Amino acid sequence: MASAAGKKVAMVIANNFEDSEAIDPKNHLESLGAEVVLIAAAPGAFNGKKGGSLTAERTFADVDPAEFDMLVIPGGGAPENLRIHKPAVEFTRAFVQSGKPVGSICHGPQLLISAKVLNGRTVTAVNKIGDDIVNAGGNYVDEALVIDGNLITSRVPGDLPVFNEALGKALIG
Amino acid sequence: MASAAGKKVAMVIANNFEDSEAIDPKNHLESLGAEVVLIAAAPGAFNGKKGGSLTAERTFADVDPAEFDMLVIPGGGAPENLRIHKPAVEFTRAFVQSGKPVGSICHGPQLLISAKVLNGRTVTAVNKIGDDIVNAGGNYVDEALVIDGNLITSRVPGDLPVFNEALGKALIG
Repeated sequence: MASAAGKKVAMVIANNFEDSEAIDPKNHLESLGAEVVLIAAAPGAFNGKKGGSLTAERTFADVDPAEFDMLVIPGGGAPENLRIHKPAVEFTRAFVQSGKPVGSICHGPQLLISAKVLNGRTVTAVNKIGDDIVNAGGNYVDEALVIDGNLITSRVPGDLPVFNEALGKALIG
Repeated sequence: MASAAGKKVAMVIANNFEDSEAIDPKNHLESLGAEVVLIAAAPGAFNGKKGGSLTAERTFADVDPAEFDMLVIPGGGAPENLRIHKPAVEFTRAFVQSGKPVGSICHGPQLLISAKVLNGRTVTAVNKIGDDIVNAGGNYVDEALVIDGNLITSRVPGDLPVFNEALGKALIG
């Protein structure tokens, strides 16, 4: 079996993250051998919307996209909290522009919208933000998994099996 | 004191509404003598994000904008639930286009974005959706109260005193 040993994944979190959309990809990528680094606006513990908790080891102020092989943006209320934090927006923009794989699920594209990287890109997301994706110049489609270049997107927790598999494949390359 | 007796207000709700942003304007407008009618995608009780509950007496399928003198859109997670319900979007579009006053607070403009009525309009909202308002052609400003023609907007529960006062004035005329 292929391994992601030595690969480093940036996962961005904030309060009100959708628990399974953070924890499941984290566990999956770690099971493949990758290191998953949680990044937030400040160090410390953040609450999931369903009662879970994750602790961020790093902040946007002290990371460089060059350190990482992949970016993962879980959904819930976290993306709208991250999109108003300028260093998170700049990190996300630089990461997408680097061409390295970026996974986004549910409300994750709210952060991509604020990073101004969706123009001409095809993505999926929770249907509640479809109009915002279109207004940002993106092409919104309602599918379990969409891969457009380095953007890997899914809609809801029910899509996690195909989302996780796609993240693993993109990371191992 | 001026009275809003005989005036009828449409308040649109869905699950995860911000409790105070629905209940405070409802109480204020009723105290002025208005009738506030709760409208939802289906009849029944809906849960506020902070534990409250409101019961919708009417649905979008059985209302006409001509029945009402004002529309109020509370925030929280309700607007993103309403914006994917086509009859709610059509009701909102017709109401804004009627020229009658429309109050929106917090995430309320998500429904206005999907109703495609923000082009060229100046509004405020919770800052988390500012980029989406701009991408919809609106002018987003960060102020406690913004009045642009028939659009009356505020940001957060802390703005409710000025929001409620502006709604009352607009209703009494």
